[in-house]
Amino acid sequence: MSEQVVSHLRENRERLLKKLNDFLRIPSISTDSKFAESVSEAADFLKTYLEDIGFGKVEKQETNGHPLVYAEYMEAGPDAPTVLFYGHYDVQPPDPLDQWVTPPFEPEIRDGRLYARGSSDDKGQVFMQLAVFEAFMKTKGKIPLNVKVCIEGEEEIGSENLYEILHEMKEKFSADFAVISDSGMVADNQPTILYGLKGFTGIEIEVEGPDHDLHSGMYGGAVRNPAMALAHLLASMKNTDEVVTVEGFYEGVEGLTDKERALIKSVPGEDFKASCGIAETASEKGYTPEEHTMARPTFEINGMYSGYQGEGTKTIIPATATAKITCRLVPGQEPEHIQELLEKHVLKHAPSGVRVHVKKEKLSAKAYKVEPNHPLIQKASESYSKAFGKETVYVRMGGSIPVVEWIDALYDVPVVLLGFGTPDDRLHSPNESFPLDSFDKGMETLAYYWSSFSK
Amino acid sequence: MSEQVVSHLRENRERLLKKLNDFLRIPSISTDSKFAESVSEAADFLKTYLEDIGFGKVEKQETNGHPLVYAEYMEAGPDAPTVLFYGHYDVQPPDPLDQWVTPPFEPEIRDGRLYARGSSDDKGQVFMQLAVFEAFMKTKGKIPLNVKVCIEGEEEIGSENLYEILHEMKEKFSADFAVISDSGMVADNQPTILYGLKGFTGIEIEVEGPDHDLHSGMYGGAVRNPAMALAHLLASMKNTDEVVTVEGFYEGVEGLTDKERALIKSVPGEDFKASCGIAETASEKGYTPEEHTMARPTFEINGMYSGYQGEGTKTIIPATATAKITCRLVPGQEPEHIQELLEKHVLKHAPSGVRVHVKKEKLSAKAYKVEPNHPLIQKASESYSKAFGKETVYVRMGGSIPVVEWIDALYDVPVVLLGFGTPDDRLHSPNESFPLDSFDKGMETLAYYWSSFSK
Repeated sequence: MSEQVVSHLRENRERLLKKLNDFLRIPSISTDSKFAESVSEAADFLKTYLEDIGFGKVEKQETNGHPLVYAEYMEAGPDAPTVLFYGHYDVQPPDPLDQWVTPPFEPEIRDGRLYARGSSDDKGQVFMQLAVFEAFMKTKGKIPLNVKVCIEGEEEIGSENLYEILHEMKEKFSADFAVISDSGMVADNQPTILYGLKGFTGIEIEVEGPDHDLHSGMYGGAVRNPAMALAHLLASMKNTDEVVTVEGFYEGVEGLTDKERALIKSVPGEDFKASCGIAETASEKGYTPEEHTMARPTFEINGMYSGYQGEGTKTIIPATATAKITCRLVPGQEPEHIQELLEKHVLKHAPSGVRVHVKKEKLSAKAYKVEPNHPLIQKASESYSKAFGKETVYVRMGGSIPVVEWIDALYDVPVVLLGFGTPDDRLHSPNESFPLDSFDKGMETLAYYWSSFSK
Repeated sequence: MSEQVVSHLRENRERLLKKLNDFLRIPSISTDSKFAESVSEAADFLKTYLEDIGFGKVEKQETNGHPLVYAEYMEAGPDAPTVLFYGHYDVQPPDPLDQWVTPPFEPEIRDGRLYARGSSDDKGQVFMQLAVFEAFMKTKGKIPLNVKVCIEGEEEIGSENLYEILHEMKEKFSADFAVISDSGMVADNQPTILYGLKGFTGIEIEVEGPDHDLHSGMYGGAVRNPAMALAHLLASMKNTDEVVTVEGFYEGVEGLTDKERALIKSVPGEDFKASCGIAETASEKGYTPEEHTMARPTFEINGMYSGYQGEGTKTIIPATATAKITCRLVPGQEPEHIQELLEKHVLKHAPSGVRVHVKKEKLSAKAYKVEPNHPLIQKASESYSKAFGKETVYVRMGGSIPVVEWIDALYDVPVVLLGFGTPDDRLHSPNESFPLDSFDKGMETLAYYWSSFSK
């Protein structure tokens, strides 16, 4: 049944691109309250589109922050499966503006790419999903399965209200599986299914020494230097073999099987050295960089500060020193437990003469992993391969998408991560873009995928 | 011969205080170019005063920065010794202004203290020296020894021009010994002679990793974190026993003799814990806090920074990490050599995957030490005791006064550090003040000291 849908999408390409551009023109920057009206306008755009497509129930649900767009298509009947489609319509700020070749909210096609803020993350991919649902309705008069649509306006600012809503209205959002198109392929036109995401958790360590910055001549030799105390603490948490030395950190973590190592090896990977200007990679002893980023937990200092930062010298013993740390977690690690282990380590190793405080970051998430050979994943993989004419690769990702873990924890259903972005999309940066190849073949993938649920 | 001088000083106390207040009213803030005229005006004040006293040669010497006031009294003849008196007439900025009880440049006496910026550091103490020379001239018609006066206007900004001038005009400033009143006593009314100062040197360590901040999920596990690399480097340079672990750091450093330990123990010390709000001191294994601050070299991180410092979390691997380090040195340590040892250590221990740079701070100084039983020190000590009615204590200081080392290196003559400040003077802070007790008894000390050179 998919041929007609695909033909329809091809025939309507210009109209769809034009409509997408209308959507991209709305500066739905969630972090900046000056753009609140635009954010709301983007929600209205989606609401109208969903109504036009023929979703039975469409709501613009107000929250404590930006609105959530919810819609239901339940005409496939009680015997058909129900999918929850999640996406977000808010975008990152476009700064620095002067680095954009064309303005961020004036979409333009150049060299086969659509340039605009949100073209890849995530308005473009959200739009593709809706366009495919529209194509099914226009050509078949129906969608092959029941669909619940949940598109939020706060992903770029932490999805805090979504978390509340999902937990309060568990029944409303329940489905047999979920699909998210907010990720990318490992290379242009390389079908990629994410079957694992890392969780994360974080702490902030503050070392408090004297009650004010001290003259280093008068007090040096009598007072513990908080910056040095912090350096010792940090150095005690991960060694130069990139192994985390916090007791219990790896407890419960599965080792990598040969099969998984082979799977990771098969992924056409990014050249880490070239992409970030380093001469050598640094990974956990016994693991390749790809294995470590995809499948092993990490411990990173994200920020660190103490004392004088200006030019030249200021001969002080700083009063305090602070480090911000986040860990990316793999299956088997509980974020809260890891926070406790980190805290325990820090307090145990705190040197005398300073007071050490550990602040636990509120936002955390467990890792997510689904079996690559799960039937729902296999169906997606086949659709993907068919549309792109290439074998699908399966990857685990070092990043985290909290909503995936929330859905997993709430409903215990598979989350299919079907993303069409590419490594060159420049998410969150100036000149964000999305390849038209991905636009076309991504919609084709979805057409095949949904068709596979037809009876 | 000193009685008449002392009487004269007592009788003229009101007039002298009034004149000192005129001097303190001039906002001679050297670091702020807006005050350049005031700095020059303060130099004029000194020039006029020195001329009025009867110094034969008085110069306001222009420099690349603020002027230097130079004066000579050579009437004591070729058989009498010549003293070089050094001081400075520039002051620190008074900010934050709102914390001053009375304005910084409107001197006021409260509870036996004269409140004003510069009252202790160093305009008050410079004025006392001149007032005593004046008293000798008024009562005796002569000063008992030859005097060269060198009062600079750039001490608070590093004395860079003075360094050049001393080296270029070595002969002009040559003397048999030097006297400086720019320090303090260990307690109110406790005669204190500084017989040792620490030297110092510094480096900045910059760890460069990726060429931009990286997503900690995508790259964590493949890329060396510069902040962690820095923590490991720093932790390798001083252990938690407060022992510097840089190879060769202690080479040539004399151990403390029992006699010196006893001398240090005899000093009524500051209560480190109370004065800076710490629960425990931390000192080099085998040394008391007083021994470490006064007589052992130190290694301090003055500042450290990397990555994100704002609220909350930013999940990045920072591109760079920086630490500013200064060491206070003791006799036997060469600043340049120590810088080389530090650099060697850092480069040797730099982990793979990052580029580590060491920047050597330009300004450095060797330590200074004079034998406490040197006759010139003993004379000063006796004068001090006589004026204050209390035994003089001898201390070494953890701080550094570069000009002392320059004079020592250029002329190889003793530098007598005769300071009358007290621990409560709040140098460089709001509400700087100077005790009138120190004003009176300090001038008396100088009267006795110069008299001791009479034939």
